[in-house]
Amino acid sequence: MWFQKEIRLNARNRGFHLVTDEILNQVPELRKISIGIMNVFIKHTSASLTINENADPTVRQDFESYFNRAVPENEHYYQHIFEGSDDGPSHLKSSILGCSLNIPITNGKLNLGIWQGIYLCEHRNSASNRTVVVTLNGQLSS
Amino acid sequence: MWFQKEIRLNARNRGFHLVTDEILNQVPELRKISIGIMNVFIKHTSASLTINENADPTVRQDFESYFNRAVPENEHYYQHIFEGSDDGPSHLKSSILGCSLNIPITNGKLNLGIWQGIYLCEHRNSASNRTVVVTLNGQLSS
Amino acid sequence: MWFQKEIRLNARNRGFHLVTDEILNQVPELRKISIGIMNVFIKHTSASLTINENADPTVRQDFESYFNRAVPENEHYYQHIFEGSDDGPSHLKSSILGCSLNIPITNGKLNLGIWQGIYLCEHRNSASNRTVVVTLNGQLSS
Repeated sequence: MWFQKEIRLNARNRGFHLVTDEILNQVPELRKISIGIMNVFIKHTSASLTINENADPTVRQDFESYFNRAVPENEHYYQHIFEGSDDGPSHLKSSILGCSLNIPITNGKLNLGIWQGIYLCEHRNSASNRTVVVTLNGQLSS
Repeated sequence: MWFQKEIRLNARNRGFHLVTDEILNQVPELRKISIGIMNVFIKHTSASLTINENADPTVRQDFESYFNRAVPENEHYYQHIFEGSDDGPSHLKSSILGCSLNIPITNGKLNLGIWQGIYLCEHRNSASNRTVVVTLNGQLSS
Repeated sequence: MWFQKEIRLNARNRGFHLVTDEILNQVPELRKISIGIMNVFIKHTSASLTINENADPTVRQDFESYFNRAVPENEHYYQHIFEGSDDGPSHLKSSILGCSLNIPITNGKLNLGIWQGIYLCEHRNSASNRTVVVTLNGQLSS
């Protein structure tokens, strides 16, 4: 069984945002799969997806603080600077964190750890909504 | 053909550990697949999975040394500090390295390069065993 | 429907290189899939794969400049040094960027964003061609 849907994630401020429910609410078809994989793919090069701690918001704030230091803006050697000082670092952050997730499905649910959630990592100062492709593949519950 | 199993990886010290055989020994079903994909997903936010050099143990030691410098503990700006100085950096390392692998299966074996092996990246000072979900999908050998 | 092929990517200089067309030209079978996933897996530990900006070559140059600073050569604490100063950092870069991609297929094409392309990230000073396994899985167009 294959199912695919292109969905929009609401525009967010620069930073790391928990979007597990926003995604799951748009793919109720997942509940019919007994064993499978959900692929989530973000169609952008200045935002990314990762899985991390879903409870304490300071983790997400520390992610923003850390990545801003690890991938600084305005480095003298950057050449791709015409779209703003946040643009080049956005591309780098997006490749470090990645643009797709592959999560096991078990008995109609994502088989995440109890503390895991899906983050939208918004690296631009000003972004509109973001498009992700959700692809479900698995065997149907009998 | 779908097959899924939740397995435990033995508790390890903080560092990078080769676990290819420990995983493969627990999913003999892989041998029946002629073409497919194995997804390995770790259900934690302070440990991660990656693929790298499987022969020289100093590579794994250099990984631990490097990531401890690239993601230092006790930075003044960290807010998520109540679970110990190793906890916040664990979350960051886990998102940089990733929580899942997707490896091609060919003729009943993982189609890894000759020097590739699966690493469990244990980022906590003190951890118990770690749970991973292994999902196999492919066509059966005739 | 499953299809798998091991292909060679031409040898490249150290740096980041757009290889979307070089890969797609070797898997015309993709055109027959209405919904699916393409997995691309590189069988090496000193080169990697990522998805990023496909238009401006300075983005790829900034990637090389950035990762050379983020993962420097000749650090005093490196132990794995006998294959050259570029070798240890190659392994680290490869795990930060990753060795596999999972891209949705829609109506016979990769469902990439308009600015997204596939990069071969060559981390060695001198490399020969690189082997990747392409695995297609999906449902056939009717």
